[in-house]
Amino acid sequence: MAKVLITTVPFGEKSRVPIDLLEKANIEYVINPLGRKLKESELADMVGEFDGLIAGTEIISRKVIERASKLKLISRVGVGLDGVDLLAARNLGILVSYTPDAPVLAVADLTIGLMFNSLRGVHIANSEMHRGKWIRHFGRRIQDVTIGIIGAGRIGAQVISILEALDVKRILVNDINQELQMHLVEKEFIYKEADVISLHVPLTDLTKNMIRKEQLLSMKSDAILINTARGGIVNEQDLIDVLNNGYLGSVAVDVFEQEPYVGGLSNIERCLLTSHMGSMSVDCRTRMEVEATEELVRYFSGLPLQGLVPEYEYDSRGLA
Amino acid sequence: MAKVLITTVPFGEKSRVPIDLLEKANIEYVINPLGRKLKESELADMVGEFDGLIAGTEIISRKVIERASKLKLISRVGVGLDGVDLLAARNLGILVSYTPDAPVLAVADLTIGLMFNSLRGVHIANSEMHRGKWIRHFGRRIQDVTIGIIGAGRIGAQVISILEALDVKRILVNDINQELQMHLVEKEFIYKEADVISLHVPLTDLTKNMIRKEQLLSMKSDAILINTARGGIVNEQDLIDVLNNGYLGSVAVDVFEQEPYVGGLSNIERCLLTSHMGSMSVDCRTRMEVEATEELVRYFSGLPLQGLVPEYEYDSRGLA
Repeated sequence: MAKVLITTVPFGEKSRVPIDLLEKANIEYVINPLGRKLKESELADMVGEFDGLIAGTEIISRKVIERASKLKLISRVGVGLDGVDLLAARNLGILVSYTPDAPVLAVADLTIGLMFNSLRGVHIANSEMHRGKWIRHFGRRIQDVTIGIIGAGRIGAQVISILEALDVKRILVNDINQELQMHLVEKEFIYKEADVISLHVPLTDLTKNMIRKEQLLSMKSDAILINTARGGIVNEQDLIDVLNNGYLGSVAVDVFEQEPYVGGLSNIERCLLTSHMGSMSVDCRTRMEVEATEELVRYFSGLPLQGLVPEYEYDSRGLA
Repeated sequence: MAKVLITTVPFGEKSRVPIDLLEKANIEYVINPLGRKLKESELADMVGEFDGLIAGTEIISRKVIERASKLKLISRVGVGLDGVDLLAARNLGILVSYTPDAPVLAVADLTIGLMFNSLRGVHIANSEMHRGKWIRHFGRRIQDVTIGIIGAGRIGAQVISILEALDVKRILVNDINQELQMHLVEKEFIYKEADVISLHVPLTDLTKNMIRKEQLLSMKSDAILINTARGGIVNEQDLIDVLNNGYLGSVAVDVFEQEPYVGGLSNIERCLLTSHMGSMSVDCRTRMEVEATEELVRYFSGLPLQGLVPEYEYDSRGLA
């Protein structure tokens, strides 16, 4: 009987379908006993007895994988692969699957909401009102600003399509895929020109610390920066320093270098902070959990897999 | 030389155009010396020496108007006329103008932002994160819910048109104008069916306290109620009671019975509160101030007025 560890949190909370799938397939499962994102060492200590992982964003490094002597499949709930050492997994014959389409609509929805919110200073007014302070903030309408999108993959492209439906007057896009049917500009141009900058790139060796003090200071002094992609793309300490010096209009951050997040951004009122909730709409989260579980059930039922991570993801690791 | 009191706050802050218009027309002006919404008695004490008012949402009652012995024109920055005793003004030969189109885009923009925000629990997560608390909230995507719009005048219609562009699957509309090109439903149906209920009616004797405990409790237990229209349409004490009993998902409130607001909603974390910022986008606020000032300049230059409040606004007062 296959035995599976579910590390992602939450799991099976809004829909029992993924749990039912496992039980129907006679797969034994253990749900993350700590109820939060596991640290590398915690996962390494647990992983030895399991044949499969239904994984979140935790670090699945070579160190973890070398302890996973029975592991055959890592089935990621979601799209980012920054936590997974793909080459180590391949070396040890472990397959990796993911659910890249399932979170798209939810992450784009949160991103658009953060744009509206930040442009009107809603989070600042709300925090003041809860302290009994009445200040009428000026803001800007979403149609009336220049929005820069860095990364036009699945999620970035969906954000762009919503902005187009909203009739936003000027959308600037940067992406490494030169075949996109959009007019692409340099990142540096976006930093300088955009009123709102939203990140939709994966975390890789190329994008880690992509936005440091230098990039932040090249933005408009009242620019709004939104990160619903991955912590680490924006250097957090640099961001805190720049904000504390009064630069940037506001920032909205859903993702952090270390999660759960504890740190200096929490002390800055104009930081709009959420707890890695991009994919957390009931419908998308359920779809992600179900798709990742179905993939795992397929594996242990001897059926062909449908969500294997494509070869180019491995290739890009080889290059880095 | 005409002398004008500008009561609305802020005024001329983001654009000097309205100030320049007054100076060029040789109109003497005084800007609200208290820097906040005036109370009825404060305005009554001030108003006697002025020929014109550039007015905000403060109460311009019969008591105020009877003290305004020189007043010829009230030029409202914005659309709501709930503060103005139109019949008293007419009896004493005072004209009333307003700028009903100028705030539309800004109020609709804030409303849509509050919907996105409330549906994903952004304000709750933000307040938790600023207290060092990491909770991943489930939410719903805006496309995936039923949204009820009460009042499909200028602003309500604009909200509907944005929701349609966003491809929201089900929009329910209530309005007293039966000639609208939309399928209208009863308010009671909206209370029962909608996941998000947004108010876009003026404050009149008919809409005052339109939503009391009974109406709130007829909504879904996780419904989201949004009021960017006027305080007083929702009974605030009833709203506080219902929320404190754990009913309703969350509420977003931009407008209050008394402004600046001080009260119990501030102690409820799932209340998203803003400080009457609906019209406060730089572009719309500027347009409102300029239009109201232009109207006043027209009057004192002997030119025909363009923004006079239409007759049906007076008629509806006669009926009440």
